[in-house]
Amino acid sequence: MELQWTKIFLPEIKELIETKDFKGLRDFLRERHPADIVDILRELDPTERVMGFRLLDKRKISEVFALVEPMEQEELLKRFTEQHAKEILVQMQPDDRTQLFDELPAHVVEKLLKLLPPAERKEANELLNYPHNSSGRIMTPEYVDLQMGMTVAEALEHIRKTGPNRETIYICYIVDETKKLRGVASLKNIILASPDQFIKDIMNENVFYVHTTDDQEKAVQVVQKYDILAVPVVDNEDRLVGIVTVDDVLDVVQEEVTEDFQRMAGIHTTEEEYFRVGFSKRIINRVSWLVILVIAATISQTILKSYSGVLSSVIALAYFIPMLTGTGGNTGSQSSTLIIRALATGEIKSKEWWKILLCEFKVGVSLGLIMGIIAFIIAALSLGKITVAAIVSVSLCIVVSVGNIVGLAIPLFFRFIKLDPAFVSAPLIATLLDATGLVIYFEIARRTLSKSAS
Amino acid sequence: MELQWTKIFLPEIKELIETKDFKGLRDFLRERHPADIVDILRELDPTERVMGFRLLDKRKISEVFALVEPMEQEELLKRFTEQHAKEILVQMQPDDRTQLFDELPAHVVEKLLKLLPPAERKEANELLNYPHNSSGRIMTPEYVDLQMGMTVAEALEHIRKTGPNRETIYICYIVDETKKLRGVASLKNIILASPDQFIKDIMNENVFYVHTTDDQEKAVQVVQKYDILAVPVVDNEDRLVGIVTVDDVLDVVQEEVTEDFQRMAGIHTTEEEYFRVGFSKRIINRVSWLVILVIAATISQTILKSYSGVLSSVIALAYFIPMLTGTGGNTGSQSSTLIIRALATGEIKSKEWWKILLCEFKVGVSLGLIMGIIAFIIAALSLGKITVAAIVSVSLCIVVSVGNIVGLAIPLFFRFIKLDPAFVSAPLIATLLDATGLVIYFEIARRTLSKSAS
Repeated sequence: MELQWTKIFLPEIKELIETKDFKGLRDFLRERHPADIVDILRELDPTERVMGFRLLDKRKISEVFALVEPMEQEELLKRFTEQHAKEILVQMQPDDRTQLFDELPAHVVEKLLKLLPPAERKEANELLNYPHNSSGRIMTPEYVDLQMGMTVAEALEHIRKTGPNRETIYICYIVDETKKLRGVASLKNIILASPDQFIKDIMNENVFYVHTTDDQEKAVQVVQKYDILAVPVVDNEDRLVGIVTVDDVLDVVQEEVTEDFQRMAGIHTTEEEYFRVGFSKRIINRVSWLVILVIAATISQTILKSYSGVLSSVIALAYFIPMLTGTGGNTGSQSSTLIIRALATGEIKSKEWWKILLCEFKVGVSLGLIMGIIAFIIAALSLGKITVAAIVSVSLCIVVSVGNIVGLAIPLFFRFIKLDPAFVSAPLIATLLDATGLVIYFEIARRTLSKSAS
Repeated sequence: MELQWTKIFLPEIKELIETKDFKGLRDFLRERHPADIVDILRELDPTERVMGFRLLDKRKISEVFALVEPMEQEELLKRFTEQHAKEILVQMQPDDRTQLFDELPAHVVEKLLKLLPPAERKEANELLNYPHNSSGRIMTPEYVDLQMGMTVAEALEHIRKTGPNRETIYICYIVDETKKLRGVASLKNIILASPDQFIKDIMNENVFYVHTTDDQEKAVQVVQKYDILAVPVVDNEDRLVGIVTVDDVLDVVQEEVTEDFQRMAGIHTTEEEYFRVGFSKRIINRVSWLVILVIAATISQTILKSYSGVLSSVIALAYFIPMLTGTGGNTGSQSSTLIIRALATGEIKSKEWWKILLCEFKVGVSLGLIMGIIAFIIAALSLGKITVAAIVSVSLCIVVSVGNIVGLAIPLFFRFIKLDPAFVSAPLIATLLDATGLVIYFEIARRTLSKSAS
């Protein structure tokens, strides 16, 4: 089947609903993947949606529910009966459940936790106790554990017995009597070994793990670096308590990318989805940076004020202010973006800074010369004044070269003092460069004009 | 083991090299994960690095080589003997080999292809024939295929026999005599079934697949949406020809994110790594947008020129140009970033545009009012002129409201006309807003000042 095939079936489903053919609908949904059912349900109105849920079989209902957008989950929980909600929650994967609780208001979570049987409630509470964005918070305790003394045949039997409820059976972890993590064996290793071999002889003792309190980003890095399907999570005493699987890693990557984009645009980052952010929070997330930048822009005002003499004698100088500050900022955000991404993906190391600076210095000067020539032509044509055109041209050349270096030096400096370079926002660089650019421009203008006047 | 433990071992390794303890070094490297060996080799100088490679065993050497940065791969190939290079290439996974050839200059690829035995050469040529960024280009033909008539026991036997050379054995594909894809069975399903069941009875017929010519982005979407470990790739006649696995998907995601970041900053996107981009290409990638933006900025010049009367009568108006244009651009890039990411992750659909516009209209006006008040205070304090402060304040309020809406309308429009919203670069929005902001500002100034003069 191809992606987005659900669109083709939508009229058919709508008809099944309108003719109240519940048996036909149930049969249709039974064959479908949970992710597709979510797509289908999204197209229905709220009452139809709740009805659609009722038609799903028990096992599938919690899978589908886990995939629904958080805001919609809350809405659905309100419409389900208590018994129905309970069934779904009990069936859900522990990590999906934590994610759901993370998004719901505290009083709703409290009510839902009471619905859970004691064992699940304890588990949910434990997971919710790990810090936000920690590996413990996104892990699932449903992994396959093996003993060192087991033979391959015994291990396979154990996997067959416990496997159906596990998040993955492809990576098995070997623990000792104290639950300490001792090794790892992939199902591939186990399947390819002979049945009477011992697990301790085929396991790999060099297991890469993370701690429950480690940032989730670390679990992501381990999975990406070692191309593994899951990373084990251990507590302070090195006991295995859960795993983070590759599908969760993909979700975290998307989340972190969104955060990086928002930071770059000067938005206070938020993990909530677009429509879920409340009105006042939406304002607060954005206004802080805007205010900082407006206050930072008073530097530009002061600079312009101090050059008001030059400015009023040649008013044409003002025409080029937006172009100069804009181009400086654009160059700076180009170079900072290049460097931030290259640092994030590990393509370059911060210790290669001299190599980067040298390389970008040459690039900046070349860009500056090209832009300077273009600016000269534009200014000369539009004004007919060679002096002003020359001032604009030389200034732009310098502004571009400086902007380029500043744009990459600030993220490198952030990395150097162990801060995430992604915190450097493009608007901040642009505002800093505005002030720098204006000083360069008006200082050149003042000197040139006073010389040509004398 | 924890991430980055390699740093601790570095002095030990350096000592093994200095004392020429090759046996010790070989033993140390044998136990290590290929990704860690790459980290270690990176710290060594080029001659030591080639020596390190010689100490690896045959199977591991190609795994390590596949993980080395492309520029370094080229460098290493030059230093290896022809026999050594041949051994590595033959052992490499087909998809890693395609990736290597993609990065090397054409004449080097031609030479290396000649080193391969006929079967591998044919395979490599076929993979290189698929378009750039297509699913065929990143797939590997090393999957496990099963027949419908096999029993579970026979299937397991087949997996044991062919498994060692396969990229993954966790997802098996069922094909008919004509190689047409008929179903999929996870190793989990197979392991949990009873040995005498038929594969055709436990397989899932609803297989999600992509075509060889589909963009790699589509393979990524299928893997992400359905949380699967691999997606099968079929040719025009629906015959199974390869698979794309989840680890490749993670790499593609990183690549695409880098592209989106670069586009947003107005850089012509490139798939090459930071240091690999040549000097002239480095300039070309960046200069095109800068030139477009400088030319677009002539609109601002024309506007300012046409208001030169107002400007020269109240020179203080010029002081606030950088703040006004900057804040308009910042607001626009905030809203465009929010919308582009929300569209990319599927949190919002473009058909909800009226809901988004309404919501952001209110946000924009609120932000505008807040910024307007702050700007009034700043301008009044620094100038002592209430009229100019009022002009600045009202203009900023309008500029922020307009900037906010423009920033989100453009990406929504792009999506509407089926273009990728990620093509909307923040600098372009900022430059458009510069011109808009200046007209608003000077028009308000002209009207207010002519009124107060009369």
